[in-house]
Amino acid sequence: MAVNNVKGTRDIIGEEANAFNYIENLLKQICELFAYNEVRPPVLEHTELFVRGVGESSDVVRKEMYTFLDKAERSVTLRPEFTAGIMRLIVQNKLLNTNELPFKAYYVGPVFRYERPQLGRYRQFSQFGVEAVGNNSPEIDVETIALAYTILTSLNLENVSIRINTLGDDESRENYKKALKAYFAQYLDQMCQDCHSRYELNPLRILDCKVPEDQKIVEGAPKMKDFLSENAKNRFNKVLALLDEMSIPYVVDDTLVRGLDYYSETVYEFHYTSSNGTNYGAIGAGGHYDKLVAEIGGPNAAGVGFSFGVDRLYSVLRDDNLLRGRMDNPVEIYVMPMGEIAKPLAMQVATELRVSGYRTDMCFEDVKLGNMFKRAERKGASFAVIIGENEVNNQEVIIKNMATQEQINCPVERLTCKVSELMGDECCDGECQCHHKEN
Amino acid sequence: MAVNNVKGTRDIIGEEANAFNYIENLLKQICELFAYNEVRPPVLEHTELFVRGVGESSDVVRKEMYTFLDKAERSVTLRPEFTAGIMRLIVQNKLLNTNELPFKAYYVGPVFRYERPQLGRYRQFSQFGVEAVGNNSPEIDVETIALAYTILTSLNLENVSIRINTLGDDESRENYKKALKAYFAQYLDQMCQDCHSRYELNPLRILDCKVPEDQKIVEGAPKMKDFLSENAKNRFNKVLALLDEMSIPYVVDDTLVRGLDYYSETVYEFHYTSSNGTNYGAIGAGGHYDKLVAEIGGPNAAGVGFSFGVDRLYSVLRDDNLLRGRMDNPVEIYVMPMGEIAKPLAMQVATELRVSGYRTDMCFEDVKLGNMFKRAERKGASFAVIIGENEVNNQEVIIKNMATQEQINCPVERLTCKVSELMGDECCDGECQCHHKEN
Repeated sequence: MAVNNVKGTRDIIGEEANAFNYIENLLKQICELFAYNEVRPPVLEHTELFVRGVGESSDVVRKEMYTFLDKAERSVTLRPEFTAGIMRLIVQNKLLNTNELPFKAYYVGPVFRYERPQLGRYRQFSQFGVEAVGNNSPEIDVETIALAYTILTSLNLENVSIRINTLGDDESRENYKKALKAYFAQYLDQMCQDCHSRYELNPLRILDCKVPEDQKIVEGAPKMKDFLSENAKNRFNKVLALLDEMSIPYVVDDTLVRGLDYYSETVYEFHYTSSNGTNYGAIGAGGHYDKLVAEIGGPNAAGVGFSFGVDRLYSVLRDDNLLRGRMDNPVEIYVMPMGEIAKPLAMQVATELRVSGYRTDMCFEDVKLGNMFKRAERKGASFAVIIGENEVNNQEVIIKNMATQEQINCPVERLTCKVSELMGDECCDGECQCHHKEN
Repeated sequence: MAVNNVKGTRDIIGEEANAFNYIENLLKQICELFAYNEVRPPVLEHTELFVRGVGESSDVVRKEMYTFLDKAERSVTLRPEFTAGIMRLIVQNKLLNTNELPFKAYYVGPVFRYERPQLGRYRQFSQFGVEAVGNNSPEIDVETIALAYTILTSLNLENVSIRINTLGDDESRENYKKALKAYFAQYLDQMCQDCHSRYELNPLRILDCKVPEDQKIVEGAPKMKDFLSENAKNRFNKVLALLDEMSIPYVVDDTLVRGLDYYSETVYEFHYTSSNGTNYGAIGAGGHYDKLVAEIGGPNAAGVGFSFGVDRLYSVLRDDNLLRGRMDNPVEIYVMPMGEIAKPLAMQVATELRVSGYRTDMCFEDVKLGNMFKRAERKGASFAVIIGENEVNNQEVIIKNMATQEQINCPVERLTCKVSELMGDECCDGECQCHHKEN
């Protein structure tokens, strides 16, 4: 009997794997241009890290973690997100002991959440993001937004709306929480059970409630903007002014509070609407934090970061038809040995073409020439290289242009040059006896 | 108190992360040239998959797996290797139901083994490899060896020795096992406890024993080559003849049996000796298998594959000084705003340079110009872009060549063109008013 995959996990194969590679390479390249460097924390961390870093009261920690005891009875967890692990990595490797702050890092890799599997949601998915730690300026907040915006426009996701808000400093947030408690106290008996615990733990989270009846009550709630300290107001205005000067479009959304306790000051989300009007909601989000590094046991240092789900980016791009030419990965040359005798030369020729940079496949099965041509076509090959007994004896090959059906004979030692010429590339090395030089 | 990493795991940061990126990109590119496509099975699989695919009696399954019960009481395991997962992926996605065989796939990603942590060995490490499934020819065995050899030479690992052997077909192996049992029976009371169970389960494994006393006994054991059927002999001779014709050097090593039950016919290892004579042993290995796909519940289909540890490749390359220029990732341009007033323009300019393809960083802290220059130097910047109040007023910047100390003023709207020119690149678009056109 067959063994199947674990529920909620999936295989990424074929065109989808090509698209993931394309997306991840683009993310990495743009981060490198912005002078962010990759970091790779491990998949397994002590459970305590996420309890501290993500927050004991969060849904992620309460319900969704893959936590288990290892053979030494340690409670370990498959990371449900990267930020806590990056903070641990920064603290443990003492990366803030430098005068080159902020420390700017990006990451991409698998994360794990034990959620109810549903359409497009998996228990393992790929997350990408950045963190810039050790600088508290509005400029670094804006740099992360500019980085995310550059990524989204480079992926041709034009219909992105950047929503931005400030959660203010400690003083602003304490005053606002008091006002929220006073307001929601009047309606609490009409609100959902989750909102009751949010009311106690962090009334800001009530603003995120998805229950329609509660949302109506939320609409009348006091606004963060009316409780901002002068400092917080000035900081936020600087962020907005910088975005204006950089021509990065945004919408101030004073209902935006983000689901995690550690955020303060600037928070933002990237919402996407497809060309046919489908609203995908937030496809990425981030914000500023003041206390997270200290929470993990490090120094007092502010930071800012965002993350995107790569699987989510992939589905948005696929649904909006923005992956044309990124999904397929055609073979350029298909090598066809006619019979046993031709196979050694075919393998030699295939390896030579590959080493010269041509994506080359060869037929390993003893099928008829017509069948081989069909395979070459299905693989999208531009040229077929045919080798039979005559060719072996004469140390030559037949090169056939799959589009025009033209074919020529070519000595084996000139093959790479000839293919370069036919593909419109530069000749291999200028040292050879190829057609180029004869002219 | 700080939370530390889980014992046996580690953070990959800085130059090491750059080197991992370089290695993995090269591996991927060469696989693509050989017409292998990426597949990404999940990290978590049912424990049963590895029991069946790796083998119940193997050390990996018996002692080294991260196995736990998930919330639905399923026994799941963090993959200790990729091959079993790839077989499951092939069977479950019906990838052999095609007339385009073999199915050729590569993979790279984290694997997990609960081993005693020791120098250079971690409980999470990165594994890369390929599998070609659905063709039983000696040619496909050789293609995988040619692929691995191309990878190793592309990494400049010149001192690689390819060791190759055949385990023969079923008939050969049954006869050989009988002969081994007869031979080892005389010495069993002098041999280690592990060899006693190997004797019962699979006497071929005794040949892999690392105990020095046992190794002496192994030296006198019967050789596989004397028990090969005609078919197995012919197949192996074809493999060797193809390697000869492709000028791939190898050594036939008739003690090579590989540690896993599923191998048959061709098996091979890549041994590395550094330039100073250090013997690293096998840095990669693989072989042919006949029964693995069926074991996972799929059709009868042969395959061949190999794997390398990326961490191991990295340490070999680092120790042999073969990563020069691959480890560091210098910033090309460092932008220096002099005071608050210059920051918006600095951020605008930095983003523009990044979007034009220059790795650019900027100073976020209010430090003196001298300090900023030191930072630019440490980051390896080729050019500094300096912006003060005058420059903001005149909408220009100062570009300073960090090597020659020459500096010029440049209008903001010509900056990208000027930088392209100074870096020796093509001008940005030919549409601008830049210096290029004036000449």
